[in-house]
Amino acid sequence: KQHDHYTGAPCAGYNKGQKHPFTEVIKANIGDSHAMGQKPITFLRQVVALCSFPELLNSPSFPEDAKQRARRILQGCGGQSLGSYSASQGVDCIRQDVAVYIEQRDKGVPADWDNIYLTTGASDGIVSILKMLVSGQGRSRSGVMIPIPQYPLYSAAISELEAVQINYYLDEDNCWALDINELHRAYQAAKEHCHPRVICIINPGNPTGQVQSRKCIEDVLHFAYEENLFVMSDEVYQDNVYSPDLQFHSFKKVLYEMGPEYFNTVELASFHSTSKGYSGECGFRGGYMEVLNLDLEVKAQLVKLLSVRLCPPVSGQAAMDVIVNPPLPHEPSYLQFHKEKSAVLGALAEKAQVTEQTLNTVPGIKCNPVQGAMYAFPRIFIPPRAVEEAKSLGMSPDMMYCLRLLEETGICLVPGSGFGQREGTYHFRMTILPTTEKLKVLLEKLRDFHIKFLKEYASLEEPKR
Amino acid sequence: KQHDHYTGAPCAGYNKGQKHPFTEVIKANIGDSHAMGQKPITFLRQVVALCSFPELLNSPSFPEDAKQRARRILQGCGGQSLGSYSASQGVDCIRQDVAVYIEQRDKGVPADWDNIYLTTGASDGIVSILKMLVSGQGRSRSGVMIPIPQYPLYSAAISELEAVQINYYLDEDNCWALDINELHRAYQAAKEHCHPRVICIINPGNPTGQVQSRKCIEDVLHFAYEENLFVMSDEVYQDNVYSPDLQFHSFKKVLYEMGPEYFNTVELASFHSTSKGYSGECGFRGGYMEVLNLDLEVKAQLVKLLSVRLCPPVSGQAAMDVIVNPPLPHEPSYLQFHKEKSAVLGALAEKAQVTEQTLNTVPGIKCNPVQGAMYAFPRIFIPPRAVEEAKSLGMSPDMMYCLRLLEETGICLVPGSGFGQREGTYHFRMTILPTTEKLKVLLEKLRDFHIKFLKEYASLEEPKR
Repeated sequence: KQHDHYTGAPCAGYNKGQKHPFTEVIKANIGDSHAMGQKPITFLRQVVALCSFPELLNSPSFPEDAKQRARRILQGCGGQSLGSYSASQGVDCIRQDVAVYIEQRDKGVPADWDNIYLTTGASDGIVSILKMLVSGQGRSRSGVMIPIPQYPLYSAAISELEAVQINYYLDEDNCWALDINELHRAYQAAKEHCHPRVICIINPGNPTGQVQSRKCIEDVLHFAYEENLFVMSDEVYQDNVYSPDLQFHSFKKVLYEMGPEYFNTVELASFHSTSKGYSGECGFRGGYMEVLNLDLEVKAQLVKLLSVRLCPPVSGQAAMDVIVNPPLPHEPSYLQFHKEKSAVLGALAEKAQVTEQTLNTVPGIKCNPVQGAMYAFPRIFIPPRAVEEAKSLGMSPDMMYCLRLLEETGICLVPGSGFGQREGTYHFRMTILPTTEKLKVLLEKLRDFHIKFLKEYASLEEPKR
Repeated sequence: KQHDHYTGAPCAGYNKGQKHPFTEVIKANIGDSHAMGQKPITFLRQVVALCSFPELLNSPSFPEDAKQRARRILQGCGGQSLGSYSASQGVDCIRQDVAVYIEQRDKGVPADWDNIYLTTGASDGIVSILKMLVSGQGRSRSGVMIPIPQYPLYSAAISELEAVQINYYLDEDNCWALDINELHRAYQAAKEHCHPRVICIINPGNPTGQVQSRKCIEDVLHFAYEENLFVMSDEVYQDNVYSPDLQFHSFKKVLYEMGPEYFNTVELASFHSTSKGYSGECGFRGGYMEVLNLDLEVKAQLVKLLSVRLCPPVSGQAAMDVIVNPPLPHEPSYLQFHKEKSAVLGALAEKAQVTEQTLNTVPGIKCNPVQGAMYAFPRIFIPPRAVEEAKSLGMSPDMMYCLRLLEETGICLVPGSGFGQREGTYHFRMTILPTTEKLKVLLEKLRDFHIKFLKEYASLEEPKR
């Protein structure tokens, strides 16, 4: 009964009565922070509880700044209740808070709350925008450029919408950077059989954990401008940057800095979520998207499309509001909030480093720096004999690897084939979400397993054919 | 900025600064109980608040039964947090509670929690099932039978999925009953150009407010059995039955009583929601569906499809749990819960009656009994000259009627054309959700308006051509 986010993680139904050579399953397959033991941010939960049960507004045990947030959100709800439908785009005052947040994040680049749509997690926004954009038949079918490796939401949505998936490969030898020449190659090849219309970027990257440079973002935007592509920038890990020498640049801010010729023309949608960052509130299904340069009639169609799901969950909207409108230094909850946020992000930064370093000590595993997001996506050497065996079993070699790992150690990872990878290369995705202690156990067991696996399949002979 | 649920209610942007001949807008266009002043059920909100901020489990101001519910829900969540993703089908223990609820509701008809899927409101479930069922091209395209008038989610989803909408008309002269001969007519006609695959029923009816008889349900199920149709029964108003001589029969219970030949073969999905009933918690986007007789492989595909949205909002799942697992007579919250629930349902029953009776005193308006749900769908006589004028303005006559009503009285209703109606007949949908006092004002103003409208357009001459 285990949810596996259509990535093909093999841990479904494990740890249920059968005898195993391990005492516990260690899950590192899903970006599900609270399930891995991360505690909720107190202030966020206080605001949601106050909104859910407004009698608590009279309780002296809740801080005034949390009450002020809750009162404001409730003012924006029909009948001052979280139980009313909001407008399809979300509660007005929350959309306003999002716009203010974006302006501050982007050092004054203007944000219009009319361009903000609250969503049911980021996925809802991503699928809605794709649904709105893709059309056509045969050679005029819309093509959607996505990175490989990718987060499988994209391939699933593209397939469901019967659009054309255009793969551009990230450069593993260059810390999974986006290579602009590869974009051109993929675009030119695709133009022969479809109408490329959209380019998707995930920054910081999932599953690859890279943080894009400002220069690279500018190149992508210039390319999108030249080729008239709609840019979808998945920025749900914008708070998850760990390398001290790197920073998150939003696509919108870079577009602005490129000048009005770009800022007033390139169509852009960017996505954020309550599920990642330091709050990790996946279950609330909160999120927003900001759109730029959409035709007014297209915006009307978008609202119509969004209205089919009536509205995003209002408690998720409230959670989103706290993330964009956290306690300020002079407010009573600031110290605790800041402490909790720093603790989460500090631990993630430490675990990102431990993961990369430990994996790189294992012969046959090569891991790029985990610059951001919540994942490592190391390349693993799988001996030819093991590749043969997997093929004879009708499964991908990295799936066989992950299955064996699970059966022998209880560690649950996701095979790279669920995300896409260059032909003949093998990877797995692991989250850095287990507690530091558990993560170290995981990495040790993984090392032992890998060495044993290499030995088992090592052979001087050519694999049998 | 007013959400209008794609029905075409004309009240968007009203009451914003312009001068109007009224002092307030009275909205009766959306089934949005809390926005119309209904108070949340205390127990439900206590449980949600406890789940959101578990520190409250130590507070003496929360009753023990609410704490017990919250603890159980949290036990079912990863890391005991609402912030974790649940499985795509929903939290196990909540699905179990739903199954127990259904067994009790249906007097012992067995329910298997493996057939229960929690959803993001009922809409999510309805769209998912349709998405799974429809396919084909040309004459083999799937046809979906829907009642006319219908709730526009159905027509919107069918159109988006490029399936064929097959209309069967409800019998207005017979209290909007479903007429089995009309089903046969619609089916036979549709068979010529598509492959009828699904029949949708809304019971109690939206927008028509009828409650189906047991006999009628049996007829529909027999028809579905004969023609191998998948039955989708939208039962979100199952708690909203007002006529003392009527009761809600679930399609599943009737199917069971028809014997194993039916119960073990007819494919059925039924839908429920937190949004209606006595709780009216629309904003939480909670809901469930129960499926019957689905092939195991089809179920696997359904889970895969549902996994694209990762999981339903977990706080909405918690709200659904309270609705299927309310306080029992021996528990501390029972009295208050029961009082609140009865007050809501009692007021709705009274307003259903007041609405029907008052509307039927107006010349040129004829209203069927509001037996259930939350709506009246009266037929209105629109004089030929008004029909002509509307056509010359390029709008439907009932849209012109509703616009005029809004401009002159501030009352916001939805034109019947948003739901479908027999050619040449005109209706509007109004909710019975305003407070009794406000509802009476609304009905009086509506009567005055209608009489004035009839006078204005009355003429002995034939309308000009």
